[in-house]
Amino acid sequence: MINEKLPKIWYGGDYNPEQWDKATWDEDTRMFKLAGIDVATLNVFSWAKNQPDEDTYNFEWLDEQINRLYNNGIYTCLATSTGAHPAWMARKYPDVLRVDFHGRKRKFGGRHNSCPNSPTYRKYSERIAEKLAERYKDHPAVLIWHVSNEYGGYCYCDQCEAAFRQWVNARYGTIESVNKAWNTSFWGHTFYDWEDIVLPNGLSEEGEGEVSAFQGISLDYRRFMSDSLLECYKLERDAIKKHAPNIPVTTNLMGFFPQLDYFKWAKEMDVASWDNYPGIDTPPSFTSMTHDLMRGLKSGQPFMLMEQTPSQQNWQAYNALKRPNVMRLWSYQAVAHGADTVMFFQLRRSIGACEKYHGAVIEHVGHEHTRVFREVAQVGKELQQLSDHILDSRAQAKVAIVYDWENRWAIDLSSGPSVALNYVDEVHKYYDALYQLNIPVDMISVEEDVSSYDIVIAPVLYMVKPGFAKKIESFVENGGTFVTTFFSGIVNENDLVTLGGYPGELRSLLGIWAEEIDALAPDKKNAIVMKENLGALSGSYECGLLFDLIHSEGAEVVAEYGADFYKGMPVVTVNRFGKGKAWYVASSPDKKFLQGFVKNLCDDKGLSPLLQVPEGVEVTERVKDGQACVFVLNHRGEDVQLDLEDSVFTNLLTKGKVTGKISLSKNDVLILAH
Amino acid sequence: MINEKLPKIWYGGDYNPEQWDKATWDEDTRMFKLAGIDVATLNVFSWAKNQPDEDTYNFEWLDEQINRLYNNGIYTCLATSTGAHPAWMARKYPDVLRVDFHGRKRKFGGRHNSCPNSPTYRKYSERIAEKLAERYKDHPAVLIWHVSNEYGGYCYCDQCEAAFRQWVNARYGTIESVNKAWNTSFWGHTFYDWEDIVLPNGLSEEGEGEVSAFQGISLDYRRFMSDSLLECYKLERDAIKKHAPNIPVTTNLMGFFPQLDYFKWAKEMDVASWDNYPGIDTPPSFTSMTHDLMRGLKSGQPFMLMEQTPSQQNWQAYNALKRPNVMRLWSYQAVAHGADTVMFFQLRRSIGACEKYHGAVIEHVGHEHTRVFREVAQVGKELQQLSDHILDSRAQAKVAIVYDWENRWAIDLSSGPSVALNYVDEVHKYYDALYQLNIPVDMISVEEDVSSYDIVIAPVLYMVKPGFAKKIESFVENGGTFVTTFFSGIVNENDLVTLGGYPGELRSLLGIWAEEIDALAPDKKNAIVMKENLGALSGSYECGLLFDLIHSEGAEVVAEYGADFYKGMPVVTVNRFGKGKAWYVASSPDKKFLQGFVKNLCDDKGLSPLLQVPEGVEVTERVKDGQACVFVLNHRGEDVQLDLEDSVFTNLLTKGKVTGKISLSKNDVLILAH
Amino acid sequence: MINEKLPKIWYGGDYNPEQWDKATWDEDTRMFKLAGIDVATLNVFSWAKNQPDEDTYNFEWLDEQINRLYNNGIYTCLATSTGAHPAWMARKYPDVLRVDFHGRKRKFGGRHNSCPNSPTYRKYSERIAEKLAERYKDHPAVLIWHVSNEYGGYCYCDQCEAAFRQWVNARYGTIESVNKAWNTSFWGHTFYDWEDIVLPNGLSEEGEGEVSAFQGISLDYRRFMSDSLLECYKLERDAIKKHAPNIPVTTNLMGFFPQLDYFKWAKEMDVASWDNYPGIDTPPSFTSMTHDLMRGLKSGQPFMLMEQTPSQQNWQAYNALKRPNVMRLWSYQAVAHGADTVMFFQLRRSIGACEKYHGAVIEHVGHEHTRVFREVAQVGKELQQLSDHILDSRAQAKVAIVYDWENRWAIDLSSGPSVALNYVDEVHKYYDALYQLNIPVDMISVEEDVSSYDIVIAPVLYMVKPGFAKKIESFVENGGTFVTTFFSGIVNENDLVTLGGYPGELRSLLGIWAEEIDALAPDKKNAIVMKENLGALSGSYECGLLFDLIHSEGAEVVAEYGADFYKGMPVVTVNRFGKGKAWYVASSPDKKFLQGFVKNLCDDKGLSPLLQVPEGVEVTERVKDGQACVFVLNHRGEDVQLDLEDSVFTNLLTKGKVTGKISLSKNDVLILAH
Repeated sequence: MINEKLPKIWYGGDYNPEQWDKATWDEDTRMFKLAGIDVATLNVFSWAKNQPDEDTYNFEWLDEQINRLYNNGIYTCLATSTGAHPAWMARKYPDVLRVDFHGRKRKFGGRHNSCPNSPTYRKYSERIAEKLAERYKDHPAVLIWHVSNEYGGYCYCDQCEAAFRQWVNARYGTIESVNKAWNTSFWGHTFYDWEDIVLPNGLSEEGEGEVSAFQGISLDYRRFMSDSLLECYKLERDAIKKHAPNIPVTTNLMGFFPQLDYFKWAKEMDVASWDNYPGIDTPPSFTSMTHDLMRGLKSGQPFMLMEQTPSQQNWQAYNALKRPNVMRLWSYQAVAHGADTVMFFQLRRSIGACEKYHGAVIEHVGHEHTRVFREVAQVGKELQQLSDHILDSRAQAKVAIVYDWENRWAIDLSSGPSVALNYVDEVHKYYDALYQLNIPVDMISVEEDVSSYDIVIAPVLYMVKPGFAKKIESFVENGGTFVTTFFSGIVNENDLVTLGGYPGELRSLLGIWAEEIDALAPDKKNAIVMKENLGALSGSYECGLLFDLIHSEGAEVVAEYGADFYKGMPVVTVNRFGKGKAWYVASSPDKKFLQGFVKNLCDDKGLSPLLQVPEGVEVTERVKDGQACVFVLNHRGEDVQLDLEDSVFTNLLTKGKVTGKISLSKNDVLILAH
Repeated sequence: MINEKLPKIWYGGDYNPEQWDKATWDEDTRMFKLAGIDVATLNVFSWAKNQPDEDTYNFEWLDEQINRLYNNGIYTCLATSTGAHPAWMARKYPDVLRVDFHGRKRKFGGRHNSCPNSPTYRKYSERIAEKLAERYKDHPAVLIWHVSNEYGGYCYCDQCEAAFRQWVNARYGTIESVNKAWNTSFWGHTFYDWEDIVLPNGLSEEGEGEVSAFQGISLDYRRFMSDSLLECYKLERDAIKKHAPNIPVTTNLMGFFPQLDYFKWAKEMDVASWDNYPGIDTPPSFTSMTHDLMRGLKSGQPFMLMEQTPSQQNWQAYNALKRPNVMRLWSYQAVAHGADTVMFFQLRRSIGACEKYHGAVIEHVGHEHTRVFREVAQVGKELQQLSDHILDSRAQAKVAIVYDWENRWAIDLSSGPSVALNYVDEVHKYYDALYQLNIPVDMISVEEDVSSYDIVIAPVLYMVKPGFAKKIESFVENGGTFVTTFFSGIVNENDLVTLGGYPGELRSLLGIWAEEIDALAPDKKNAIVMKENLGALSGSYECGLLFDLIHSEGAEVVAEYGADFYKGMPVVTVNRFGKGKAWYVASSPDKKFLQGFVKNLCDDKGLSPLLQVPEGVEVTERVKDGQACVFVLNHRGEDVQLDLEDSVFTNLLTKGKVTGKISLSKNDVLILAH
Repeated sequence: MINEKLPKIWYGGDYNPEQWDKATWDEDTRMFKLAGIDVATLNVFSWAKNQPDEDTYNFEWLDEQINRLYNNGIYTCLATSTGAHPAWMARKYPDVLRVDFHGRKRKFGGRHNSCPNSPTYRKYSERIAEKLAERYKDHPAVLIWHVSNEYGGYCYCDQCEAAFRQWVNARYGTIESVNKAWNTSFWGHTFYDWEDIVLPNGLSEEGEGEVSAFQGISLDYRRFMSDSLLECYKLERDAIKKHAPNIPVTTNLMGFFPQLDYFKWAKEMDVASWDNYPGIDTPPSFTSMTHDLMRGLKSGQPFMLMEQTPSQQNWQAYNALKRPNVMRLWSYQAVAHGADTVMFFQLRRSIGACEKYHGAVIEHVGHEHTRVFREVAQVGKELQQLSDHILDSRAQAKVAIVYDWENRWAIDLSSGPSVALNYVDEVHKYYDALYQLNIPVDMISVEEDVSSYDIVIAPVLYMVKPGFAKKIESFVENGGTFVTTFFSGIVNENDLVTLGGYPGELRSLLGIWAEEIDALAPDKKNAIVMKENLGALSGSYECGLLFDLIHSEGAEVVAEYGADFYKGMPVVTVNRFGKGKAWYVASSPDKKFLQGFVKNLCDDKGLSPLLQVPEGVEVTERVKDGQACVFVLNHRGEDVQLDLEDSVFTNLLTKGKVTGKISLSKNDVLILAH
């Protein structure tokens, strides 16, 4: 349980009373109660209010808000307000201002705008976190600390450059090791002195679209920037823990946000939390995958849905309303995948500036007689009923998909073989195939223990880090099923190629050699031709993007290319290795192939769907103390008929019995217990 | 009359004798006479020639040109030459050079290149204007002063930043008022000191595509930049007026140019003038709308067509020739909408630099035996015949369309709800519907007195400024018809939302509440379903872009949405208010709906087309002393048949009678008097 | 012969032993021998290794490599290593770092990164070239010097600005001449002082897409930059020649690379060499045209194919493999057009950095059992057989196509008439028509002697330099056929229009006057309607892009426009002038017209294809001592049947006789002697 003070699924969101007057506060409280809201995230962007100059701190307003809300039964998720520095700080201490990718010093403006290596920023952000901790460490309202906000954004200033040299020195020890790791003998970039190293940006090694001339230095700069921002987080967290060691600390993450290695971050967080903003056309399986990734950050521990919009966003191209009941559907989708909170950005819509067209529980009209508010209040009421059954329960998956931020960086930074290669999309293709079957999946890091899984899938595992290949070999030897794809096993953690033949360290496990890698424009396709029927697979399928030209070195060839000069060469292989199997898919297949392929893998391991439901209906399960809670989510866009056959469930919302043939409305949800 | 020295429609254009030798001057004069040219705009870009250093001024060359032309019957529109600073000024006084949106200091180059807050630029531009005024104040050739040229371009330098702080201080008085107006409690951007304020650009609050994090500061920077450039204009104008108080002063504007609030500018100009450069695909109704806007700048007073090309431009992607007679057609289109001059850029084509492929009266071949010259000469001859009837006559419209630059800025700066929303396009849709009916329209500012109109249409009036709502309520109470659309009445002049329910200050007038605003991709459409037949409207029409979800609060629902979850909700409403009606169109309709809708409005008010003509034929009227002059313009791209029935007109070009069935050739024009 | 030390077609490529260890070197040597490789380009990017600080030079490693290779029968193409400066130099002497188009000072990174006017760069690049020359001047392995690498990239720093002023001064002598040449009276840009001149870039006269406000200054900056980089080359070359006067010197060029005037460069090179990187969709005729251009740089002298990839590239969007036998086909295509070397980038694929996915003779797998290696070895073996017949032989063409870099710059820099106008594409259209007929073509500069040609074609010869018109008049007077097109003869070498009527200096030769130039969007077409059948031409063809509206002034009208208001005006004319003919094609025709048109020209001159072959088969010839070697290249993508009829050839690869009907496989090649 995140905090036992509030032993239910928390319901609330970001709240900015500092933008409003007292009359509005009273109205807010009334409406929060109507909506079943029990937690408010305060102080996210109030640094300027809290600290009007170097020496003055004003927290009285915050005391008043926390107390006022608490007196009305509403707890506080307490932010540290360091997501945007105050204007005076930018004016007096320009070191807090970032330099952008093109080398331009920024001026005061925006948010997430501080140089992470700025001495001024670090000093004052740590100090205000400590002052807040001292002040509120014993306040009964405070459930959790919310450090800063949506960390992100790289800086390219001179102080970052100096800090980067130190970071590199600490990592490699000698300049010779740096030269080797970054292969600087290429293009004569050999460094003789630490001072020779300049940071990689648009003025040095990097170009548009994130491609770098030297992947080594660019990879390390991403690691360094992720670490630099994490260092800022840790400074605040430690300042808080000094005074309030027992209150959990988090910061809100952003799913597949590319800039930070969240697996590394999550180790420093008591609970993972994230902000979920799908667009109207985002596939539900992509959202589910992201929830699973956020759950995977802390190895399955429940996470917080820290933000979602009650209806509209403002920053998409076309900001569609969430259709009726979709907010509810997506809220339960989060819970179904392991969230123990449902929280919104924002409780009241601001009157001006760039988020005034971002939806809120309380809209500009200011009263509760809106569709949005009614839907919010319904969910609030339901969550009060549900929490006992769900809180702290766990998803249980036998299939894991590997995702790795550093692998993604290396792929994106590399020049060739195809600009169309998108790592996250390839991961999603495999996730989606499992999702369509309603097979639970864990999204895991390359460091995760895999021994409890039946199947581990690592799409486009281009970078193989030390120890990973051995771990997977051991997993397969012991009976596991491993799947990887084209363009895997190519490089080590510094993006240096593993010589001797692709897929490098995975070669003996997979029993193949990839001699060449063809890359064609997206409209050029090849075929996956099954050598014989195999479970759900038969005949021919389409593939594209990249095409490894592989030779079996012991693996069984399951399918061959159907066209081009490599017609007849293997495209899908399986290698028996110890008690298990290692599969290789040498191109990017169509959806139909992947569904059959994944079904075969699951059948082979005796894994079956949680429920048999029509397409477009998602089913997940969370288990606590042996008791399963089943979520049935209708994403199909129309009413559907389900047949539960002889199973008898209790509908946790209605408390009624559910069995046999039933109907589930468009966008509706069933939450069932046996 | 702009200047009684030349009591006819002026005919001429920009002329740069400083680029040519004496032999060419003589040839020019001969050809100008052949073409009926009687005015030349001189000295537009001659600052470097006029003033080779800080202290030296040379105007002898200009004396010679003005005199030479005058001796040949050609008057002068005298520019002040400040549209581009001299190279020596940029070198010695870098404060004249602008800093761009990305913070880069520019070097000498281009035109319209001076920082409007540069002390050097202001000093020398004022000084040269004064010197010119002293020298030419009594010259009989000088008809009008042409200050600088096509003002535009923002600057983001430190001196602009300092001046902006002063401007903000003058507007708001206290830093607290600034914080309130800009809602800086959002994201903790509160200012404690005037020095905290930095200008909004790509290094601070603004991003690509003009979106700002803080609309308040960005709106004010646009106001400030428009004012700063206007201040430059006023310095020159006042310097001129000191010596030549009776010669009119203008500067050439650019239609819907986004950067400057021309309604504010026009107050400082004796006559509006503008440069008309439609492309080959520009709808004729868009050009007409722009003429009407330029006429509206000074409440209907005749304006100057200061520039148009005789044939080609150079800066479009594909610079098509003006087809035969199109230059003539478009010249009369300007006159038909209120222009009392027809002037070209340029009289002679330059030999080098970026406008060498811009058309001219005298082409590179240098003689008069060209299609372009022959067409120019024909119009010159005709204008000599026509002027008596047209000069100083006025268009008379009973329909007004509201256009507001600050509203446009606020829409463009806002983040959400849709990037596809283009204010000018929405205005044009309504204008075009009236244009197709040949109903005259005035384009007016929000400050204009509306009491003389029957119908006022304000598409997407997102920003409602103080007093506007009351004025419109009074207009409708007294019997007027008002129309507005989706996304109107949302914010005040600082882009702060009017709380309590959209459309804010217009809500009681319109009798509706807009609960939500949906935004969908451009290919996603809904339907406007008429509840019953209404005049020219029946059945169903298409709508898109934004979709207000409105509730009637007294308004009659005329049409409902035909699809999506708001099917059946109102999409077109009319509210009876006093003796008049207030219409609301909650989405962006197709052309067919708008033509029927507008026809109904006009029928209701007894407004009918000036003439019944086939589609593609434009008809306008100018009236002087009760005498109407009717323009019939064939934009259809082929010959058409007209039926004037029993009306009997005089063709002012042929002096013949015109009645009954007649033919009008492709691109031809009739100018008729009763 | 490039160097008599190795009297065969050289075979090898770029090799970077400094990236590898000794074990790899031994393996490399073994494999080079297997592949028939006899030349390695060394030291391309080893400056940092050669010179770790200002005063220290280490060439022992290079001695070892050159010797080791030589001892294994492999010669050296010795680079000077100055294509990328060392990191220490950038740190200590920032003047070596460039400033980019937007005025941003770059940091250390990339390659081709030195300011060409940097005193530091010039000092150290000259010095290292001299040291290398001293050391290796007598080494028997050194075949040729390879100065720097792929020169290119402009700089916009203050030292370039100062040098530009001197360059301008040297060219024009007085500031008045500069003002005249650049037409600075336009927009009042008159310079009074040399210091007034600022370099043209994104902060001054130039904008996105290379358009300039002043073509004069921008043209001269391109000339100056081309000269500045050439000066760097010459400094190194002269340092080498001082010690090694008899070893040829080159630098590798890049075909139609836009930035440098290669005709001027080639005068300073002993042999032309270039890097050929067609994409999978590049038309074979474009590659052939580029080979012919590279051959034309030195008036037909054999050139070096310095780089091509054995299979893949890394920097295209989708890096397709070269299909089986395509590397061989394209290698012989180079030889067929005059190359006396076949060389690769690269011999061994690097382990890291941005070219790790660029193909190599030795792939990451490290052994010879790859498709790529086998194909390389086959070509290596064949070249050993062939060299006697081909080396030093010459192509012999009676048709020349004019190409001029300064003309291209002027077209690209000009604003109007159409952004779709691409000079190289228009040149290629005419080249391709000749290519389809298998008529040999020389690509020549405007300075080339044309008296030996039958036909000279100068598409879009917008800029006519002094003397060119007279030379062509004399050529036609003496019986030659000249062809030019729309938008020709417009300006002089400063991009100042030749007044008095287009096509200016070419007008009397062509017997036409172009009154206007229409420009339409690419989807808008007109028709070329033949007045009567003319050889291979009859009926109607499509044309587009630009449309000159021409009048005959003596020329015979062969075809007329078929549509628009200039229907019936001439579109193709021919003027008899002395004993010859001058053709004008007033718009951009379709492929079908051009094939007929070019066929007529050739028939008229008695020029016929080298062989009659099916479409998609290329035939060229090289002649030495009266002996012809015929190349037949099957680009068609499938097997073809040829009929050589009674001709009897010797197949130089198989030594067999070839006559009558024969088959040629997809991507296969015949090399035949009579």
